[in-house]
Amino acid sequence: MNQADIKENVRKVVEEYFRPTEDMTLFSAIQLARKVKEKALEMGVNAVIAIANKGGNPVLVECMDNSYIASYDIAFNKAYTVVALKMSTKKLAKLASPNGSLYGIQFTNGGRIVIFGGGEPLENKKGQIIGGVGISGGSEEQDTALAAFAKETFEKGVN
Amino acid sequence: MNQADIKENVRKVVEEYFRPTEDMTLFSAIQLARKVKEKALEMGVNAVIAIANKGGNPVLVECMDNSYIASYDIAFNKAYTVVALKMSTKKLAKLASPNGSLYGIQFTNGGRIVIFGGGEPLENKKGQIIGGVGISGGSEEQDTALAAFAKETFEKGVN
Amino acid sequence: MNQADIKENVRKVVEEYFRPTEDMTLFSAIQLARKVKEKALEMGVNAVIAIANKGGNPVLVECMDNSYIASYDIAFNKAYTVVALKMSTKKLAKLASPNGSLYGIQFTNGGRIVIFGGGEPLENKKGQIIGGVGISGGSEEQDTALAAFAKETFEKGVN
Amino acid sequence: MNQADIKENVRKVVEEYFRPTEDMTLFSAIQLARKVKEKALEMGVNAVIAIANKGGNPVLVECMDNSYIASYDIAFNKAYTVVALKMSTKKLAKLASPNGSLYGIQFTNGGRIVIFGGGEPLENKKGQIIGGVGISGGSEEQDTALAAFAKETFEKGVN
Repeated sequence: MNQADIKENVRKVVEEYFRPTEDMTLFSAIQLARKVKEKALEMGVNAVIAIANKGGNPVLVECMDNSYIASYDIAFNKAYTVVALKMSTKKLAKLASPNGSLYGIQFTNGGRIVIFGGGEPLENKKGQIIGGVGISGGSEEQDTALAAFAKETFEKGVN
Repeated sequence: MNQADIKENVRKVVEEYFRPTEDMTLFSAIQLARKVKEKALEMGVNAVIAIANKGGNPVLVECMDNSYIASYDIAFNKAYTVVALKMSTKKLAKLASPNGSLYGIQFTNGGRIVIFGGGEPLENKKGQIIGGVGISGGSEEQDTALAAFAKETFEKGVN
Repeated sequence: MNQADIKENVRKVVEEYFRPTEDMTLFSAIQLARKVKEKALEMGVNAVIAIANKGGNPVLVECMDNSYIASYDIAFNKAYTVVALKMSTKKLAKLASPNGSLYGIQFTNGGRIVIFGGGEPLENKKGQIIGGVGISGGSEEQDTALAAFAKETFEKGVN
Repeated sequence: MNQADIKENVRKVVEEYFRPTEDMTLFSAIQLARKVKEKALEMGVNAVIAIANKGGNPVLVECMDNSYIASYDIAFNKAYTVVALKMSTKKLAKLASPNGSLYGIQFTNGGRIVIFGGGEPLENKKGQIIGGVGISGGSEEQDTALAAFAKETFEKGVN
């Protein structure tokens, strides 16, 4: 192993183990939102699409024309919830139901925790959560489907 | 086609295709509130009547003598809720119940979402929501009945 | 002094000293708002007119077409302020200015105290405050003038 | 009058008298944000860009990478403020200063009124306010310049 080889190997180790976790960028968020909007149009849903970064802070919120006024806060809070609790709002819904182990969690964070479908954490290639997406505007089934679509799209490639 | 025909045809086209979605006016709101108050007196309810425009912003709030102090916020928020979610609070009540698909929605918008009866969206002749009414002061049944009466009255004629 | 005279005198004393202070009624508030709107139209102001009762709770809020969205909260809070502090917001403005004796009062009541013109307490014939009016929508001068007009109108006769 | 004349006259009538006041669309908001971002990059500012519609409700919020976390609320509230009060936050800053006629207005609307530069109302060709833009992320001068740029850009052409 010559010096150049050593250097290259060290670089790889550092890259793999020590590289900072990426964070959601506005560029990625815009690309992702564009694909979600196309899907929403296909499904006939006027959605609000919110994307948060790994700090739980918003990166992008887009309100499709004629979306619900209330959907802004809901989408925004779904994106927060999934980053803040590292799980989808669908999964949280079960835990927060009257017999669930987290029943009451919807009151602990100043009204920011959403406990119905439509939010999904977004992971990078290494399985680290680097953001979250919240969708509101359709039925719970539609929002849940759109959030799953967003997660899949992001993790396949926009990432 | 003579001039009168042309004029008539233009009027129709304009009316059908180009008329702006009206927004709630104070004049209409006052007329509507007057009729709701007469009905409330008949029913023996001291109601608060709130009317919002299509942006979810208030146009009129009237508190009948001896109405509940708490009814102000409730009526106001019902009027907001029905515009913001494009459905009656009665319908929302079902979706937001412990087994409903929107359970927890009452915590997502800073305390402005009301999930019991007494709020109805108000539509123009084309079926577009141009405002909402929120009633609080009686039992849930009474508030629901008064809101339904308000919707019917508005859509039949005050509109 | 015969028995009838005695009875009459007792009645008067009771009326003067023990009669409950009247409270603002919705009927009076609507009459007053109608006159204020006429004046506002004359002045070319799209005003929000809020009227509170002696408990500082709202009785009536009317938003003229094309009034400011922000004026709702402002008018509402002016009506509260004048009842809560028993003085006009114009007078309070001086006391709450950086060198005034009440500087800082605008932070003490959860954002409900307004310290610029447009609010006036409303008194009955005996000089008791039985409500308040808050006007927002024009310049401070216009709001102040409209509130003064409302006070004068109320105390002359709608009362 | 031939058919072309009729068509042309109809178009004019519709345009002049019956055209609805448009509202901000997501499409226009995205176009506008794209231009503002280019300008912000040129100026070296990491900005948050918020665009509201004529009801004061949000349409789009974009947070450039490395923008301040606090800028989200500020930009959002600037966009609300300019629609809710129909003036730039720069102009409001003067009226809300300790000697101004609206001193204290920053406390009247639940913390949503912003009284420093960076917000501008957006008008259509007829001079009607159909939305607002709020910028936060640079110095007040930079935010003010970016908001002015956004207003000019919108009113020249994205509109």
